[in-house]
Amino acid sequence: MNAPLTIALDAMGGDFAPDMVVAGAERARERCPDIDYLFFGDEGRIAPLIDRHKGLKAISRILHTAESVSNETKPSVALRSGRGSSMRLAIDAVSDGRAHCVVSAGNTGALMAMAKFVLKTLPGIDRPAIASFFPTLRGETVMLDLGANIECGPEHLVQFALMGAVFARTVLGLQEPSVGLLNIGAEEVKGREAVKLAAAQLRETTFPGRFHGFIEGNDIAAGTVDVVVTDGFTGNVALKTAEGTAKLYSEFLRRTFSASIMARLGYLLARNSFKKLRKRTDPRRYNGAMFLGLQGVCVKSHGGTDAVGFANAICVAVDLVKQGFNDRIREELARLRAPLLPESKAAAI
Amino acid sequence: MNAPLTIALDAMGGDFAPDMVVAGAERARERCPDIDYLFFGDEGRIAPLIDRHKGLKAISRILHTAESVSNETKPSVALRSGRGSSMRLAIDAVSDGRAHCVVSAGNTGALMAMAKFVLKTLPGIDRPAIASFFPTLRGETVMLDLGANIECGPEHLVQFALMGAVFARTVLGLQEPSVGLLNIGAEEVKGREAVKLAAAQLRETTFPGRFHGFIEGNDIAAGTVDVVVTDGFTGNVALKTAEGTAKLYSEFLRRTFSASIMARLGYLLARNSFKKLRKRTDPRRYNGAMFLGLQGVCVKSHGGTDAVGFANAICVAVDLVKQGFNDRIREELARLRAPLLPESKAAAI
Repeated sequence: MNAPLTIALDAMGGDFAPDMVVAGAERARERCPDIDYLFFGDEGRIAPLIDRHKGLKAISRILHTAESVSNETKPSVALRSGRGSSMRLAIDAVSDGRAHCVVSAGNTGALMAMAKFVLKTLPGIDRPAIASFFPTLRGETVMLDLGANIECGPEHLVQFALMGAVFARTVLGLQEPSVGLLNIGAEEVKGREAVKLAAAQLRETTFPGRFHGFIEGNDIAAGTVDVVVTDGFTGNVALKTAEGTAKLYSEFLRRTFSASIMARLGYLLARNSFKKLRKRTDPRRYNGAMFLGLQGVCVKSHGGTDAVGFANAICVAVDLVKQGFNDRIREELARLRAPLLPESKAAAI
Repeated sequence: MNAPLTIALDAMGGDFAPDMVVAGAERARERCPDIDYLFFGDEGRIAPLIDRHKGLKAISRILHTAESVSNETKPSVALRSGRGSSMRLAIDAVSDGRAHCVVSAGNTGALMAMAKFVLKTLPGIDRPAIASFFPTLRGETVMLDLGANIECGPEHLVQFALMGAVFARTVLGLQEPSVGLLNIGAEEVKGREAVKLAAAQLRETTFPGRFHGFIEGNDIAAGTVDVVVTDGFTGNVALKTAEGTAKLYSEFLRRTFSASIMARLGYLLARNSFKKLRKRTDPRRYNGAMFLGLQGVCVKSHGGTDAVGFANAICVAVDLVKQGFNDRIREELARLRAPLLPESKAAAI
């Protein structure tokens, strides 16, 4: 039998922490058999919550700290003065080998800054990226970067593409995932310079004969490609625009069904079908943004999520560890041998 | 009585031109009483279509040209060699005073390049922007730029904000429209440099005490502000991501209602409510992207639209002329007196 997989949890991160973190850990335990937990945070608050679940208590250890990182803390400040925080200690546990991965629902910028500083990036990867997956007309699509890198050079986009493809293969189980670069207009003439340079590199070197090319915003939900690559500014806006639009349509739907007695009756009849739809499009199902490109697995849960969503984030982290995601990235980088588009080369294309 | 308002139509632009253009013109005629048309394009194809509508024929003149701009033509090529095209001649008609506005469903890049070259930008505006409006939880929101300017400095974003505010006042009839800058994260520390510099200028000079500040992608559909300002790359991705997400949810809805006999029955009962919802979210209602910042009114219809959508684009152009949109922009610029954030100043903030 394998040794259990240890998950470091920032018990104090998230709007409803630590209750939601403990309840989420209990839920994830039911889904993933061979795991145990290190909870970092205020023992006086965490211990009574864990005590309620006998099974959870048996696989949990609490490492007390009174400090935590607030949502308002700037990443640079968190990095400097948050060394004793629950977030930082949870990341340290991955770095010194006591845990296989870390999950936090805390301040995204602080988590990224600390994870990058403590865990370091993988060789050949300049910057970590935030990735997540989305429901589409054709299944699920991975998109990155979702906000870690506001400005990106072509070499960064190429590295994101490579990591996204490995992710789609290892976690989504796709044999040969298609990769597209987010742009405006599908014509060669359009788009930003960095995007055009990255496309040339992806077409010729990284995915010869297999690169899908440019896609547009509407292709994300259409599921045109398995991996959507973009800079962190555009990716974050696209992610949140899609979330906002989904919310708008849910609200329109609610209003439509309550507009008349006939419509209300219609809803009662169709209710079971709508329950399935709600389950499929439940944002908690898509909770758990992966920080890709680090020497260690770090997953960010949505700050406002509940136990169901947090459990999903834990399972995403477990998946990344079990599938050996970081080893696969290393192999792909080695396979490509040549360094990925060094800046001098990028400028010469 | 006022003299009729003359609309120049590129009769050959769009996937279903010229049929859709003529049918759209006929529809718009029914909604706007005092207009007449100049149709630019292939007379042999246009004349028989117009002949079908007696009322339309009475207010239409055809100016024949055999040339047109294809969707594949690069803007620079269209500008150089498209001088005899239906698109160019329609724009020329606005420039030489024969028409009050121009509407085309043709190649966006070519239309923008030609309109900018022929009509020129308004004094104080460096670059025209593409604007459109969207359904939101709170009514309608204007967003710009939607794709004309891939890279934008702070001075361009400030000019877009000003034009968007005038648009919201004149066309949407809002007394004091709120203006937000699209960014990632609402905190001051985040976001691109140009966005931060533009925010400082908008807060202190352009809209003192009235600038909403930063918004995120989800605020677009929430209707948090009346005017969403962003660069053309981000705006285009956001627009198309929202369109794609709306399509995804429509398809999910269709599948949900056909999942079981009960659900189908439910749909039959709720059908009238859903008809209203479809009408409200009909993309044809939001057809007609305005090119703002030119010395002349130019409206771009979606290339794939039908007569209903094209008629809406015509009515948008008529609205802009009737409300004296360009005069209002000139007044606002004069009111601000000082030039809008010249580049040297922007760098010094």
